[in-house]
Amino acid sequence: MLNNFDFCVYTNFIFGKDVHERLGKEIRNMNINSVLIHHDNGMYLNNNNFLINIKNDLKDNGIKVYELGGVLSNPRLSLVYDGVKLVKRENITFILAIGGGSVIDSAKAISAGAMYNGDVWDFFSKGKSIEQALPIGVILTNPATGSESGAVSVINNEKLGQKYMAISPLIRPKIVFMNPELTYSLPKFHTACGIVDMFSHVCERYFTPEDEIGVIDRMAEGILKTIVDIGPKVLKQPDCYEYRAEIMWIGTIAHNNTVGVGRTQDWATHEIANELSALYDTPHGVTLSIIMPSWMRYTYKKKPERFARFANQVFDIPWDGQDTEVAAMKGIIATEEFFRSLGMPTSFHEYNIPTNEIDKMLDRILFRGDDNTIGGMVPLNRKDVQAIYEMAF
Amino acid sequence: MLNNFDFCVYTNFIFGKDVHERLGKEIRNMNINSVLIHHDNGMYLNNNNFLINIKNDLKDNGIKVYELGGVLSNPRLSLVYDGVKLVKRENITFILAIGGGSVIDSAKAISAGAMYNGDVWDFFSKGKSIEQALPIGVILTNPATGSESGAVSVINNEKLGQKYMAISPLIRPKIVFMNPELTYSLPKFHTACGIVDMFSHVCERYFTPEDEIGVIDRMAEGILKTIVDIGPKVLKQPDCYEYRAEIMWIGTIAHNNTVGVGRTQDWATHEIANELSALYDTPHGVTLSIIMPSWMRYTYKKKPERFARFANQVFDIPWDGQDTEVAAMKGIIATEEFFRSLGMPTSFHEYNIPTNEIDKMLDRILFRGDDNTIGGMVPLNRKDVQAIYEMAF
Repeated sequence: MLNNFDFCVYTNFIFGKDVHERLGKEIRNMNINSVLIHHDNGMYLNNNNFLINIKNDLKDNGIKVYELGGVLSNPRLSLVYDGVKLVKRENITFILAIGGGSVIDSAKAISAGAMYNGDVWDFFSKGKSIEQALPIGVILTNPATGSESGAVSVINNEKLGQKYMAISPLIRPKIVFMNPELTYSLPKFHTACGIVDMFSHVCERYFTPEDEIGVIDRMAEGILKTIVDIGPKVLKQPDCYEYRAEIMWIGTIAHNNTVGVGRTQDWATHEIANELSALYDTPHGVTLSIIMPSWMRYTYKKKPERFARFANQVFDIPWDGQDTEVAAMKGIIATEEFFRSLGMPTSFHEYNIPTNEIDKMLDRILFRGDDNTIGGMVPLNRKDVQAIYEMAF
Repeated sequence: MLNNFDFCVYTNFIFGKDVHERLGKEIRNMNINSVLIHHDNGMYLNNNNFLINIKNDLKDNGIKVYELGGVLSNPRLSLVYDGVKLVKRENITFILAIGGGSVIDSAKAISAGAMYNGDVWDFFSKGKSIEQALPIGVILTNPATGSESGAVSVINNEKLGQKYMAISPLIRPKIVFMNPELTYSLPKFHTACGIVDMFSHVCERYFTPEDEIGVIDRMAEGILKTIVDIGPKVLKQPDCYEYRAEIMWIGTIAHNNTVGVGRTQDWATHEIANELSALYDTPHGVTLSIIMPSWMRYTYKKKPERFARFANQVFDIPWDGQDTEVAAMKGIIATEEFFRSLGMPTSFHEYNIPTNEIDKMLDRILFRGDDNTIGGMVPLNRKDVQAIYEMAF
């Protein structure tokens, strides 16, 4: 049954070949006269003139342009502070993120921080509510996180070694330009990380403690099946428009809650995985490919039918209602094999992550509620999470 | 391959039990101080106090309330004129539609007409572009048309016997309250009409001249399969929250272009069917259940693989790539049987529609382009459409 929900996507997605050429005109039509371009120095763009052309396009449309590059994965609070300072000093009225999830999350933090008199980290560490934010635009160059349509920003306080999130509809991007051609030059590893992230975003919503909802489940399975189909193809043919386009759009719909409305979602995998990034700066996709299979192995017996349906619908593993746990386990193995086929690690040791600081990670996880747990489908306490980490060594 | 597209849903959907009780507060938070309630006199609401309670809620939130009821199916231009006059005279700043597609479309026309100095019919008959419109809210009581999230209004000029549409993102509702409980009292016939309409909205997008797009096709098939599953159940148990909720949400996603982006869509069935409404005031769902099977029978040989895949994925009809036309035809028969199982007619005579004015209908259809056709997947000229009408007698 569909639980009560609010659903608002709001973002205007402009998708396809050369669409970023509409940027200046679209921004001008929004009555914007100054823009901070926030980026990762075009890290994965195979075109040195790209940033220059974007700046010229904005200037040609009468828009004053400022620039702040240098965003790294697991975006740092120190750079957010720099951005907030610059935007306040120059009275900039719009933030344009050019990049992937890290750049977008950093832009979101700047957009909220610029309209706040206190420390922007308050929104992340203290759960302070965001009351105002500057409008945000995105030119997406790394499809993965879905941050381009989301209301969430995750920032890494590198001094404290904390990675926390802030949530507000006010930091949802207003306009997003998605040109699949810009992702041709994205390296194989980063492409694979994105694919795992998308897969995980659907799974976090699919694994629910509640009853099946035909239409939501079938759409979720359709997205997952397509990721399994297209994922390896895009790695093999990185300049195939068809594959790049489909993966890029999947990144958005996997995370805009189209397949998440009206149900309790899980999200334990993300919470467990994020501590690896906080401590070792491990890329988000890597942390997910390591943790997800172990999370599945640890939890599947609590809801074997769900995992068997997943195996059947996503990986075509036969299941007739009998031998449910066997089918479920086959689906978990298939997930693991899928990640490996993308060249992604599924254990700590494969990525040389130390295994001697599990307690530190467990200390940082915010176990909640009367039973001190995380996870919507299968509530996990500290001991459970410890076991999941250990299964992933 | 995904073609270029713009995608913006924008509407805030508030879904679930008792959500309409948030109405007054939400409207007040939008800084609205006067509202025109536009409705069908609560035609299908099994609660005489509903409209009174809504009015009181708005008044309690300091909002001035005006009212214009009397919307019928195939909403009439004359009532739109009344609404425009009232809104202009009283300087009303927000239109609240309480009803289904007809009420919403009428509210959209009023919202555009109220901000225009000329004749509102210009937007429909002359394709004049809508430059301004008042914001619109909806309390949905009849899920079917998807108009609650769409940018389209279809209005019936009853004097001229013309039914035309206007399109603008400005008339897209800003906020929609969707309480499935409000649809318990919707009669069986109207529920069935809505189900056919949703089914058709997905099919119009699914039947495309272009290549398959895995993620879009699978989501579309997931929605269609769920409609086939839930449709008969909701007719049997009209007060089952689970079924009503799923059908209500499907009505929205079937038409918000989630399964239509990036491809050429067909829409010939709607254009052919609409002429029956224009001439005989036939309910929209009835015209679709009559025309769609004939459209399918007339066109399937032009793209048999597409119809065979439809048969296989939506109706579980076996298809291994052989005997494609046979599988395709079985899917068409299954579609017809599905409509009949809902109590819907699939021919003119079953609904006592005259068959002697086909020429008049053909004269009204706006055949376009160099080849004078309609239809995105299979272009149909006047002779083709005549054959489709005749196949449906």
